[in-house]
Amino acid sequence: MKKSLAHAAFGILALALATTASAQVKPEDQIKYRKAGYSFMSWNMGKIKTNLDGSYNKDQVAAAANAIAGIANSGMGALYGPGTEKDVGAQKTRVKPEFFSDKEGVTKVAIDFNKAANNLAKVAADGDAAAVKVAFGDLGKTCKACHDQYRAE
Amino acid sequence: MKKSLAHAAFGILALALATTASAQVKPEDQIKYRKAGYSFMSWNMGKIKTNLDGSYNKDQVAAAANAIAGIANSGMGALYGPGTEKDVGAQKTRVKPEFFSDKEGVTKVAIDFNKAANNLAKVAADGDAAAVKVAFGDLGKTCKACHDQYRAE
Repeated sequence: MKKSLAHAAFGILALALATTASAQVKPEDQIKYRKAGYSFMSWNMGKIKTNLDGSYNKDQVAAAANAIAGIANSGMGALYGPGTEKDVGAQKTRVKPEFFSDKEGVTKVAIDFNKAANNLAKVAADGDAAAVKVAFGDLGKTCKACHDQYRAE
Repeated sequence: MKKSLAHAAFGILALALATTASAQVKPEDQIKYRKAGYSFMSWNMGKIKTNLDGSYNKDQVAAAANAIAGIANSGMGALYGPGTEKDVGAQKTRVKPEFFSDKEGVTKVAIDFNKAANNLAKVAADGDAAAVKVAFGDLGKTCKACHDQYRAE
């Protein structure tokens, strides 16, 4: 839990501050990279779901959960810099304007997401499918909460 | 080291076998997801490089290295299934035909990549910038080795 909170705190820090490192990434690439992160997490969520629905491979689930947590903890907030609130070049984005104004709400969904992702990785390492099912559902709810509030249809 | 090798072995297993989970992913989506994984790793490699070239933020580097390792260990080999050796729909791929025939060579670059990614994550957790520089260079070499052999210009 202490580690999860530390991770969440780091995610928020990265969300709040455009770091030197991220400032050098063009807005078009920021959109590309954040979409890549969500896309890759989506593949791994799908793998976990398939395992929960069918025959359960502990190693595959643990690896998928670690990939999701690694991405969740990587400070993706830095990929929402100025100029990324609308389509840029070839990169389309569905982010709503509210994402850039509702700091309190975004901080909450980001913390919830980080905590749930880290919890899933922890639970998946233990290999108990029933516990993974709960943690997976909890993580899915945090994805949906952000999509409902900040992603256009 | 034992953990790194276990991770590498899992990556290879995933590379060799199209699992039930991955078999349900359409070829077009397999290409989309593998490109997303490389793209997201690229962002994190860039962040580490920026830290090594400028002021060093241990937490940011460790998080980036964990994201890379999480993706590297996620069994991306399953995203090179039948039908993904050329462009599908909107998804373009630069993978060379040799990738699908040279099993021994691909296994080697995959193992080297997994080991280097796990080593970087381990070293980054310790926070020694000089050691991270070496591990980062080693990982970059494994990326380049695969690109040189199996990625078209």
